[in-house]
Amino acid sequence: MNVRSVIITGANRGIGLEFVKQFVALPKPPSHLISTCRSPEQATELQSIAKSNSNVHVLQLDILSDDSINAFTDKVKNILEGQGLNLLLNNAGVHLERFGDFDKVSRNGLEQSFSAHITGPVKICQDLLPSLKAAAAASPQPGMSVSKAAIIHFSSIMASIASVGPGGPPSSYSYQVTKSAVNMLTKLMSVDLESSGILVACIHPGWVKTDMGGPNGQLTTDQSVKSLFELFSSFNKSSAGKLFSYNGEIIPW
Amino acid sequence: MNVRSVIITGANRGIGLEFVKQFVALPKPPSHLISTCRSPEQATELQSIAKSNSNVHVLQLDILSDDSINAFTDKVKNILEGQGLNLLLNNAGVHLERFGDFDKVSRNGLEQSFSAHITGPVKICQDLLPSLKAAAAASPQPGMSVSKAAIIHFSSIMASIASVGPGGPPSSYSYQVTKSAVNMLTKLMSVDLESSGILVACIHPGWVKTDMGGPNGQLTTDQSVKSLFELFSSFNKSSAGKLFSYNGEIIPW
Repeated sequence: MNVRSVIITGANRGIGLEFVKQFVALPKPPSHLISTCRSPEQATELQSIAKSNSNVHVLQLDILSDDSINAFTDKVKNILEGQGLNLLLNNAGVHLERFGDFDKVSRNGLEQSFSAHITGPVKICQDLLPSLKAAAAASPQPGMSVSKAAIIHFSSIMASIASVGPGGPPSSYSYQVTKSAVNMLTKLMSVDLESSGILVACIHPGWVKTDMGGPNGQLTTDQSVKSLFELFSSFNKSSAGKLFSYNGEIIPW
Repeated sequence: MNVRSVIITGANRGIGLEFVKQFVALPKPPSHLISTCRSPEQATELQSIAKSNSNVHVLQLDILSDDSINAFTDKVKNILEGQGLNLLLNNAGVHLERFGDFDKVSRNGLEQSFSAHITGPVKICQDLLPSLKAAAAASPQPGMSVSKAAIIHFSSIMASIASVGPGGPPSSYSYQVTKSAVNMLTKLMSVDLESSGILVACIHPGWVKTDMGGPNGQLTTDQSVKSLFELFSSFNKSSAGKLFSYNGEIIPW
């Protein structure tokens, strides 16, 4: 993986923060590693990485707000100076009203989840599409790759309709319903953006010990992101439009 | 199929209206055939059916509005008089921003579609859950059936992620993303409501000549609904949590 420019949303903690750490530690780190969070002033660990790595940018982004997305993508274009964006990692997300009964599902939980997982990411992708297209057009590499131009949506095994069944964990309606929508979004975008040379895929990062995954997670953030780096490096044209587990397995819809 | 009470949303035209016609024409029609539309005063054909069939109720319902849903479900409970609801057909839906490029997808189109296909139907199901449970508990039939207690969500072949691919029709992002979310909703509800004896499944009604399907549809509303009546009659416990085509085939997620 040789990525000149990358964006990681939701990078103040968990998997997002770990991505920043592992990108910085690469033999050839990205020239522009753009990380986002809702409250940059509170993202102490991320800010300290940025302090000692001039290629790391910390930008404010609230994916629920169009104004915030507009301000963010304007800043990104200034940073990239027309040289294109190789990789967009749509990692930011929410897990509201976890593991609850059907009666407890609320309009607010559903709408916030949809905004965080679909409407916000759609607008970010739309605004940055010219930069992704520019990167794909400028790349001398044939085919498709994460180093050339790619959008990775963060989905989940919990977004797999085929994996839902009796005896499983209690449902997280807002999360599962909107993350399965992410899978469809991925598939549609992968078809539509193929001619522009942009690879679109989605991933299940594993059940990770984070604020979202809880202390019983099966992987550390380090393990999850190491696996995802390997996975991303293996991505080619045939990877587009699929849901991959961190370990490379394809998860059924 | 021997349904004492049924609700059909979006019944002023197309498939919804045809369901009302075919239910009325059954040898033993439902005692309560509750049909909904946004503007009852404009639903002339539906109103004329109601005029000559006292079992047909026409109620105002805007699935985008919680106030409208509250008023509607209150009226339904009055009509049912505690005797339970056998069948809820969540037919009402929208197809906005059809067959457009990814750049043209709008927040408004996505949010309206999500509200029409997910948040509205979730609230209707929640509010009517006691009535569906009452019907299931009161039924002498073993197992599960549409005559006992069932919720049918209207999905689409266009909601099948597996069916999206190069060379297909142009994408309808708002429709496809939110209808695939309907598939997940169906699967989750089918698991959670099984213990209450409520069958939850979703269907693809075919490509039908309606205002939504357009004049090139492959089926008339009459043909589609006839097939769906047969299909519903065949539903049992093993049908729960699946996406059926009108012709009985199971569509992959």
